[in-house]
Amino acid sequence: MDRRSFLKNTALGGTAAAATTLAAPAYAQGKRTLTMVTSWGRGLAGVFDAAQRVADNINAMSDGSLTIEVKAAGELVGAFEVFDAVTAGQADMYHAADYYFVSQHPGYAFFTGVPFGMTATELNNWYYHGNGRAMHDQLGEIFGLKSFLAGNTGTQAGGWFAKEIKGPEDFNGLKFRMPGLGGKALGNMGASVQNLPGAEVYQALASGAIDGTEWIGPWADEKAGFQEITKFYYTAGFHEPSAGLSVATNLDTFNELTPSQQATIEIAAGHANVWNLSQFLMNNGAALERLKAGGVQVLEFPDSVWDAMGAASQQVYDEFSDDELFSEILADYRGSMKASSGWLSQSIGAYRTQRDRVLG
Amino acid sequence: MDRRSFLKNTALGGTAAAATTLAAPAYAQGKRTLTMVTSWGRGLAGVFDAAQRVADNINAMSDGSLTIEVKAAGELVGAFEVFDAVTAGQADMYHAADYYFVSQHPGYAFFTGVPFGMTATELNNWYYHGNGRAMHDQLGEIFGLKSFLAGNTGTQAGGWFAKEIKGPEDFNGLKFRMPGLGGKALGNMGASVQNLPGAEVYQALASGAIDGTEWIGPWADEKAGFQEITKFYYTAGFHEPSAGLSVATNLDTFNELTPSQQATIEIAAGHANVWNLSQFLMNNGAALERLKAGGVQVLEFPDSVWDAMGAASQQVYDEFSDDELFSEILADYRGSMKASSGWLSQSIGAYRTQRDRVLG
Repeated sequence: MDRRSFLKNTALGGTAAAATTLAAPAYAQGKRTLTMVTSWGRGLAGVFDAAQRVADNINAMSDGSLTIEVKAAGELVGAFEVFDAVTAGQADMYHAADYYFVSQHPGYAFFTGVPFGMTATELNNWYYHGNGRAMHDQLGEIFGLKSFLAGNTGTQAGGWFAKEIKGPEDFNGLKFRMPGLGGKALGNMGASVQNLPGAEVYQALASGAIDGTEWIGPWADEKAGFQEITKFYYTAGFHEPSAGLSVATNLDTFNELTPSQQATIEIAAGHANVWNLSQFLMNNGAALERLKAGGVQVLEFPDSVWDAMGAASQQVYDEFSDDELFSEILADYRGSMKASSGWLSQSIGAYRTQRDRVLG
Repeated sequence: MDRRSFLKNTALGGTAAAATTLAAPAYAQGKRTLTMVTSWGRGLAGVFDAAQRVADNINAMSDGSLTIEVKAAGELVGAFEVFDAVTAGQADMYHAADYYFVSQHPGYAFFTGVPFGMTATELNNWYYHGNGRAMHDQLGEIFGLKSFLAGNTGTQAGGWFAKEIKGPEDFNGLKFRMPGLGGKALGNMGASVQNLPGAEVYQALASGAIDGTEWIGPWADEKAGFQEITKFYYTAGFHEPSAGLSVATNLDTFNELTPSQQATIEIAAGHANVWNLSQFLMNNGAALERLKAGGVQVLEFPDSVWDAMGAASQQVYDEFSDDELFSEILADYRGSMKASSGWLSQSIGAYRTQRDRVLG
């Protein structure tokens, strides 16, 4: 415990003692309202929903002991300022995609998604039954955060382009929106990469500030309206084989909470994780059909592009290899991915092949 | 509200009023202890863990308002008696695989797994963002239960055999353990199918009462010790493309709980769902390697067997087509599976193909 949390706990102890003396209801002693800042515009499909779901879960379960107030991007702080706001104690918790914070620490990329990395199932395997969660804690101890996975978009689409991508050279000079390590890889391929909050992407694309963008997948992308501007849509992408979303609480604040309040945050986040992944996956198929009907061309990158993405991604991993914690997380992440992906191919992969064959 | 729950609620109201008069802490008013009976032997790998996780989640979050006491199979009632015990109010809730109760209603099969049906991701999609949960409620209203998905084993293995399966004729006369609609399909293929609780399977196999069995997958099967008796292990199976586990509370009891207690059960179950699936999936790969190293032959059924399983499964669906609710659930389930599986192939499927190719 550092000096700051010691002082805070002492103060809290004093308050509790005073409350007892005044015979206030036992119930009210641990009552807390926490402000959750988010990287999402209010109502942004899927991602704001995940943040709201965490808050709703907590509010519904805690019977007034813990109340979460959700702020959209810009209401208290900007979309990408949530990390610093929570570490500084200006807000109590954030909901975001942790790869927005690779400049704080590149290790945060693994808790959203990394190039050629884990699918949602593999990420959950690592997080809940490998070392993922413990490594999220390791990063959190550096910055004073307690984080939990609290949403997932599933495998993200490759994105929206003004023209067909025929080879890796088509990325040269392309002004493209992509955050995280994927964005750095596209930079290695010659693209001029920008990172923009979700709520600002449409305007950037419409104004020509960017030539193309990835966002999430058919359902969220359709809601964002990118089909009004561009017509070439690549489904599978290399950059976010799944994108975990996280809720992170200021560590001192978290440590002041009662064990049941702490458990409530953790379990609310876990429920939001599976609920939110299903939300995206249940809606994407129908949205893709609507996009096609509206004239969007749905394509896949040719192998030569995937190969170039592979080489550019490996360069990114190499660039961070001097960071000891990054390398430690990478090694553990790759080991876990290998351990869980084999069985998935052998069971679900083999089953799906037979199901498709038998049902026709 | 039926007469029985009206009387119960009146009684509860009386108790709460008395407590207020006696100036007991506000806190204690809604305090409840619920007994959870399960279909699992104490400590049975993965499945008992899921039940215990639901209870631990609730106990940790509710701060004494709600306490769940977990009973293993046989401690209060037998493994397959939990459904009747909870509908009769003899126990408050059960944790089980709902396809154990197809004789109560065949529609329960869909909430565990059905032949050529949904994978875990597809099941969650249907449950949380399709009509799955509402249909679980429809069944629950018939029997007086409030159910939530609360665990998943992932795609189950085809099972353990004394000799290699070369064609569908090898199932003729085979004494095999398999519950649910999958078991009925094997019966259509000529097998003599038995349904045994998990804790009794090893003894049945060892004594020759059955020739073979499916249980779950490499990790749970290894813990059960089947490799000590049989050596032919089929990985992908047709019968349970995933197996959801459920927690079901007596509906009158559930309706008596406060809204925050109800939310606590629901969200605790959702967290257990993702936590438990990851537990199985993270452990299966290494377990399969150990089984192989111990001399187990790992095989896949030939296409002729899958085709026969397909025909036998369709026969089972046809047999239940007179049941209106079964047919309604089946139609909705198939529609949802179709809607979500296409995008999964196009995104995660295409990505995994490229990841395997690029990473080599």
